Amino acid sequence: MAGPRGRRPAGEDTRADILAAARAEFSRRGYEGASLRAIARAAGVDPKLVHHYFATKGELFGAMVDIPPDPHIFADTILFAPLEELGEMLVRLFVATWDPQAGRERFAAMFAAAAANEEQAEFVREFMRRAVFVNVMKRLEAEGLGGSVNGSPALPVRASLALSQLVGMGVLRYVVRQPTLAAMSEDELVASLAPIVQEHLVPRPPV
Amino acid sequence: MAGPRGRRPAGEDTRADILAAARAEFSRRGYEGASLRAIARAAGVDPKLVHHYFATKGELFGAMVDIPPDPHIFADTILFAPLEELGEMLVRLFVATWDPQAGRERFAAMFAAAAANEEQAEFVREFMRRAVFVNVMKRLEAEGLGGSVNGSPALPVRASLALSQLVGMGVLRYVVRQPTLAAMSEDELVASLAPIVQEHLVPRPPV
Repeated sequence: MAGPRGRRPAGEDTRADILAAARAEFSRRGYEGASLRAIARAAGVDPKLVHHYFATKGELFGAMVDIPPDPHIFADTILFAPLEELGEMLVRLFVATWDPQAGRERFAAMFAAAAANEEQAEFVREFMRRAVFVNVMKRLEAEGLGGSVNGSPALPVRASLALSQLVGMGVLRYVVRQPTLAAMSEDELVASLAPIVQEHLVPRPPV
Repeated sequence: MAGPRGRRPAGEDTRADILAAARAEFSRRGYEGASLRAIARAAGVDPKLVHHYFATKGELFGAMVDIPPDPHIFADTILFAPLEELGEMLVRLFVATWDPQAGRERFAAMFAAAAANEEQAEFVREFMRRAVFVNVMKRLEAEGLGGSVNGSPALPVRASLALSQLVGMGVLRYVVRQPTLAAMSEDELVASLAPIVQEHLVPRPPV
């Protein structure tokens, strides 16, 4: 994935190669343990070239977390999905984003870095806020679901619980590789998770 | 927390001090990045003493994850809680276990290590299997809820979804410190989460 092992001149794929190598390194060693030198070696470039693209480890980490998924894709899904399909579309987007190998590595690296370092935890919080929470609030307020609905918790709690269900699935499927969740297909995940996410965001009346 | 800074002879708290220092170090640097030398320094003991108690880094990590919670406490809660209070008791146990500072550090260290290292991911899987899944299966099978119920997914999926909801909450509350979840009291968490965990494990008929 990371291109040739030997040093080579800068090309247009160099930045992408560095980011791919960074995902693997951050995932394996956490934020503090990750070494720009090792990332350069894995990407087959001179360490100076890493510094050319990314001034600091923090900047490299930020770039790594911010490239795909484009936060706008999450925002658009939340803002424009049919209301009754919001849960399903979010589950499909989550799985499509993180299931590929590069996504798994990025997912693991993101939470390992947040655990290691307050600066990176802030980065992850900000990513979630911008990509998810702001748009959930905007959409559900526009639909008249911005507060507590049918005795359910207030919207910020409901949005947090929906995200908890997805993030927890991701941690167990990609990081821990708990056998049941690791083995489920995308359609099985959608069938099981979408109704829960939907119920968090758009609660029905109690039985 | 980790005792005096200077070197000192082995005492009966030494092992506990080493484990406390290990939680902080694994949480900060991940499994690969954690250094036994740094752990010894933080615990105020000679590195040889760390090796006296724990032959390898893997053994130290295992001991760190395995001391409280005693997996039997989870098992007993699952096996003996009133069926209609199973969700609430699991949420209360989860929060009581991980909310204290040492618990937060252990929680973060556990998932950071699982991300970094297949051996430690296997350790976390085995802990979940023994503490949670075996006993959920046993209890719910005894209650006649061992399969798909009311059109809900099969029990292994339901148990995995319940655990996803709790683990995801833990990752957002303890690791990412997402503001809404970080600010909720234990009772607020129970009020919001217990019905979901209960519904995963003991599904009611659909509306």
